[in-house]
Amino acid sequence: MRETLAEWRPAIDEAIEDLVPREIDDEYLESFFGEATYKYDTAGLQRALADPFWELLDRGGKRWRAVLFLVFVEEFGEDPEEYLPYACIPEILHNGTIIVDDVEDGATKRRGQPALHHIYGQDIALNAGNALYFLPLKVLTENPAGLPADRRLAAHEMLTCELNRTHLGQGMDIRWHNEGDAEISTDEYLEMCACKTGCLARIVARLAAIITDQSAAVEDALANYAELTAVAFQIGDDILDVENSLGRAGEFGKEFGNDVREGKKTLLVIHALEESPSADAARLTEILEADENTDEEVLEALSILEDAGSIEYARERALDLAARARTELDAVDLGDETTRKLEEFTTFVIERDE
Amino acid sequence: MRETLAEWRPAIDEAIEDLVPREIDDEYLESFFGEATYKYDTAGLQRALADPFWELLDRGGKRWRAVLFLVFVEEFGEDPEEYLPYACIPEILHNGTIIVDDVEDGATKRRGQPALHHIYGQDIALNAGNALYFLPLKVLTENPAGLPADRRLAAHEMLTCELNRTHLGQGMDIRWHNEGDAEISTDEYLEMCACKTGCLARIVARLAAIITDQSAAVEDALANYAELTAVAFQIGDDILDVENSLGRAGEFGKEFGNDVREGKKTLLVIHALEESPSADAARLTEILEADENTDEEVLEALSILEDAGSIEYARERALDLAARARTELDAVDLGDETTRKLEEFTTFVIERDE
Repeated sequence: MRETLAEWRPAIDEAIEDLVPREIDDEYLESFFGEATYKYDTAGLQRALADPFWELLDRGGKRWRAVLFLVFVEEFGEDPEEYLPYACIPEILHNGTIIVDDVEDGATKRRGQPALHHIYGQDIALNAGNALYFLPLKVLTENPAGLPADRRLAAHEMLTCELNRTHLGQGMDIRWHNEGDAEISTDEYLEMCACKTGCLARIVARLAAIITDQSAAVEDALANYAELTAVAFQIGDDILDVENSLGRAGEFGKEFGNDVREGKKTLLVIHALEESPSADAARLTEILEADENTDEEVLEALSILEDAGSIEYARERALDLAARARTELDAVDLGDETTRKLEEFTTFVIERDE
Repeated sequence: MRETLAEWRPAIDEAIEDLVPREIDDEYLESFFGEATYKYDTAGLQRALADPFWELLDRGGKRWRAVLFLVFVEEFGEDPEEYLPYACIPEILHNGTIIVDDVEDGATKRRGQPALHHIYGQDIALNAGNALYFLPLKVLTENPAGLPADRRLAAHEMLTCELNRTHLGQGMDIRWHNEGDAEISTDEYLEMCACKTGCLARIVARLAAIITDQSAAVEDALANYAELTAVAFQIGDDILDVENSLGRAGEFGKEFGNDVREGKKTLLVIHALEESPSADAARLTEILEADENTDEEVLEALSILEDAGSIEYARERALDLAARARTELDAVDLGDETTRKLEEFTTFVIERDE
């Protein structure tokens, strides 16, 4: 294993490039997708697939899904170098979902630059995103590590299960966004996060467990660790947005209150709607549902969240989830080196750029 | 087997309803997608998944992909009733691609009514479409026919392969649509059809062969039959649009020349661009690339196609493909009853409503 987790990045990118080269040619298309019945439009597929994909990847991202996978694989006594193509599976899937989510959410920016559909057109972006849902699964067919059939089948069935739930999560999130008056419980919010964000983390953990032939108990524990951690991070993001906004609100020219302006139903909002006096709750709903908000309105919403104790509530929930994630790991009894790496991993991810 | 192919429709729809009920509840969600970590928003998922799906299915469609699958399964000596859930796999996948393609193509109508994204919003429609890419694969995990592991793995690997190529086909098609000056060869056009339309037909054939444990030679022959037939149908559609347009052009108030108005690069257009005098070719490109066309311009484009002999050319190619499809079947030596049903099937599909 490399000295630090960040050092994996070049090797991961090289493995990704083997799956989706920056410059595609006939030889790649024939070997990866199978012989053409007639003739591929190679130049067209460069524009429709490889260009948008690398435009997104070259903007950054720590490839933490691939890194976490490699940490687990090493813990289970295998040489991570041999499993690099498998590490690309969750990473490529994740980038596919980003492209599609940005279209669905009408996002204008991604990693500080225009969202892909603003560069390539919605049709190309969507099709590229969707193509990335199936492209990495081909690794299981190519089978570079020579896995036996039962593990490859288990990997496919796991991916089917988790990718199904990913779409349930996105479906719930979109519906709440479209229907301002939808009543959401905190449990429904946590489920949305567990499905939408957690399932991709679960894929990382379960794939590592499956291909190294771990017991169902170990696979479950790692999956729960990954899901709980992902949900805790999501809540952490929501808290940070409110805290930074309260801190920044006085500063001239600084953006603040993005989540409020977007009308996002975060855990803090759901808590405040349940706990606030009904006049406050109604006012909060009104501000969140408005197409545009003044700075004063955003501040008003933020103080309703503060008054309801929603920041403390969310922080407690996030800490509780993080503690439960650690408990899941304790049950697996990982080696000291892995425990150290997972601590490094947490820091690595928190300082994130996406 | 039923008396006529159309009689399968109620049983197929019932099997589809088992996979995606019209009214979803907690019990379905927990049993199909697995226990919630916290709590599903069942009402939300009704709106985000089941409602758009059944809105589309209730508009019609002959479920011919499921029917063809059942014809093959019976030919191979199995009771088709037992394989109904598997028959739903290509059918649900197909409906998923329709929803997504309509967003990508900016379609306004589908089966005579508003495209789904015009009813539910683009975000819900897209996510529902994408969810349908993974939902039916769950049949292989549920495994109602008790298939051994090797066949389930083979089915997953086949689906990965074909769904990858489906996205290549769509990518090529979109690129040609966006870049009016892209030079396309007839072979590239046929490849686009083989990938975009043919791969879903290949899934039908290969799935039937895999789950009934046929040889690779039989699986290939059926897949080629399905692909060749699908491409021949596509060309047939393109010819019909031109012929009907030439016939209808004089009639007051009738729409004609839809493909020309949409700027579609059909096999006829590609042939005409290659074979026409350069002035005609340039004029044809100009009309296809224009945002709006007068009836006179559409007629002008249609006569360029006529003068270049493109209708005859396309008809010959379609007949040749259909003949090659029959040759593929001859190699398999199907029973008389199956041969009769495949003839019935061709008629059944040609009189289609989508």
